[in-house]
Amino acid sequence: MNENLYVGIDLGGTSTKLAFVSEEGNIVHKWSIPTDTSNNGEQIITHIAQSIDEQLVKTNNKKESLRGLGMGAPGFIDLETGFVYQAVNIGWRDYPLKDKLEEVLGIPAVIDNDANVAALGEMWRGAGDGSKQLLCVTLGTGVGGGIIINGNIVHGINGMAGEIGHITVQTSGGAPCNCGKSGCLESFASATGIVRLAEEAVKEHPDSQLNELDKITAKAVFELAEKGDQVSNSVIEQMTHVLGLVLANLSNAINPEKIVIGGGVSMAGEPLLKLLRKQFKAFALPRVNEGVDFEIATLGNDAGVIGSAWLAKEKV
Amino acid sequence: MNENLYVGIDLGGTSTKLAFVSEEGNIVHKWSIPTDTSNNGEQIITHIAQSIDEQLVKTNNKKESLRGLGMGAPGFIDLETGFVYQAVNIGWRDYPLKDKLEEVLGIPAVIDNDANVAALGEMWRGAGDGSKQLLCVTLGTGVGGGIIINGNIVHGINGMAGEIGHITVQTSGGAPCNCGKSGCLESFASATGIVRLAEEAVKEHPDSQLNELDKITAKAVFELAEKGDQVSNSVIEQMTHVLGLVLANLSNAINPEKIVIGGGVSMAGEPLLKLLRKQFKAFALPRVNEGVDFEIATLGNDAGVIGSAWLAKEKV
Repeated sequence: MNENLYVGIDLGGTSTKLAFVSEEGNIVHKWSIPTDTSNNGEQIITHIAQSIDEQLVKTNNKKESLRGLGMGAPGFIDLETGFVYQAVNIGWRDYPLKDKLEEVLGIPAVIDNDANVAALGEMWRGAGDGSKQLLCVTLGTGVGGGIIINGNIVHGINGMAGEIGHITVQTSGGAPCNCGKSGCLESFASATGIVRLAEEAVKEHPDSQLNELDKITAKAVFELAEKGDQVSNSVIEQMTHVLGLVLANLSNAINPEKIVIGGGVSMAGEPLLKLLRKQFKAFALPRVNEGVDFEIATLGNDAGVIGSAWLAKEKV
Repeated sequence: MNENLYVGIDLGGTSTKLAFVSEEGNIVHKWSIPTDTSNNGEQIITHIAQSIDEQLVKTNNKKESLRGLGMGAPGFIDLETGFVYQAVNIGWRDYPLKDKLEEVLGIPAVIDNDANVAALGEMWRGAGDGSKQLLCVTLGTGVGGGIIINGNIVHGINGMAGEIGHITVQTSGGAPCNCGKSGCLESFASATGIVRLAEEAVKEHPDSQLNELDKITAKAVFELAEKGDQVSNSVIEQMTHVLGLVLANLSNAINPEKIVIGGGVSMAGEPLLKLLRKQFKAFALPRVNEGVDFEIATLGNDAGVIGSAWLAKEKV
């Protein structure tokens, strides 16, 4: 039995991750449940509440120990009121998420964007290691970002801050992006973007080992690059050039202490960081470059629940 | 006689601007004195103190009314301790500015970077109009910046935040910059950068009216563009393209409410903003674009003393 616990919730379109987290940011117990998006997700909060009650019993904890609840959710959210304008993958539209959670669960709740809570998790207990000036980048299917300044997430005037995947790196003739623009960072530095670059490169260099794969994946490109495949190396070079440039440009503006790289592509680890540091150094002011460390995110799938619990602890 | 006054000081390499500022941010009295940089600027603080005493007498105010002093200074400053590592134009090196000010003047002091206090001035009483999410850009001999998030200046981990003039916009073959890199925003969007672009353009198009000038200035380029000179218009187009792109990319990351353009080049006014808005819209996410207003800075040379006074009021 624990005295003070925080509930961290990472809401996704397929599954919802939950955890009881201690005041120190340790996961005491974690579990996940399917996200029921039927009927515009109207049962989601009820399912979460039931599941929390069950797990309290199972872990011999009392509801009175729960000091607060934090949730990271996808979509457009009014961060002050916890009102969700639209969350396409969940089915919510004009949904008073914070009020619903507090009503059904009876504990105070704080909501933020899913990419932001992951950044807060890395700040608190992950690669950020307590640093309060943090630039977090998630290289997954897309490219997401979370910017922490003086220990708080930057939200901006209408919750759009951190959308670094849609920074334009090719002003004409770039690949179309889901956002409606073209030439976005995402089309170079996401897993999808790396595959796109590799597929283009293979067309021009059919002798590459990439051509022997059934299906090109970002992981395979990094693996073949390590094995010396020149075309794979040029793809990684191109990707890190673009990402290093964007991160250096952003860093000249916000001068972070740490840049934390997460998401599936970050599994490439130190070889990725080495190339990124080199490109970053070419475009950052010397004193900005001196001030920053690059790190691979360490919390993986737990970043969201830990960051949500931080929100519950600090902002309730 | 006033009850509560704040001293705002804007220290420059040639002259030092000073003001008594009310709690509401109104300039009660302002004046300036030459900056005596002889002997590594060792007399500067003494001169400031003497001058403040004189002006107190002259304006019939009492030293006891002075609640605090803020100063914007050029150079590398430890913002917590008010220690100046180096201020080339002033002559200081390893100079305990805040301690000296407090010792000689006997009132509490706060120091920040000169570009930052100008941004704070615009936030408090200028074009920022109280907005707490602000991106301030100064287009002068160089390009400076000040980023305000949640009402506070972003300093970054070693005081370098806001150096947007050194964001790289041309990754190869760009003009060399004073910072040691090349292809920086500054080489396109400063007064000097505009002259550079115009001089290049005139070489290729000697029929431009620019060629009839004794000396090309940024002001003349804007004036000839207004009068229909095609080459001048293409220079302004190029400058606003690059600046709009950089501001849109930054805004996708920090999602500001206002972008305030100041410095000599901002005298071009609405025609400049019109082109900037167009370029910005092409590269910003739609919701980021909806959230932002462009404004010309309104405080001119008073921004520094007003912002310094804000610092004194809020941070002493």
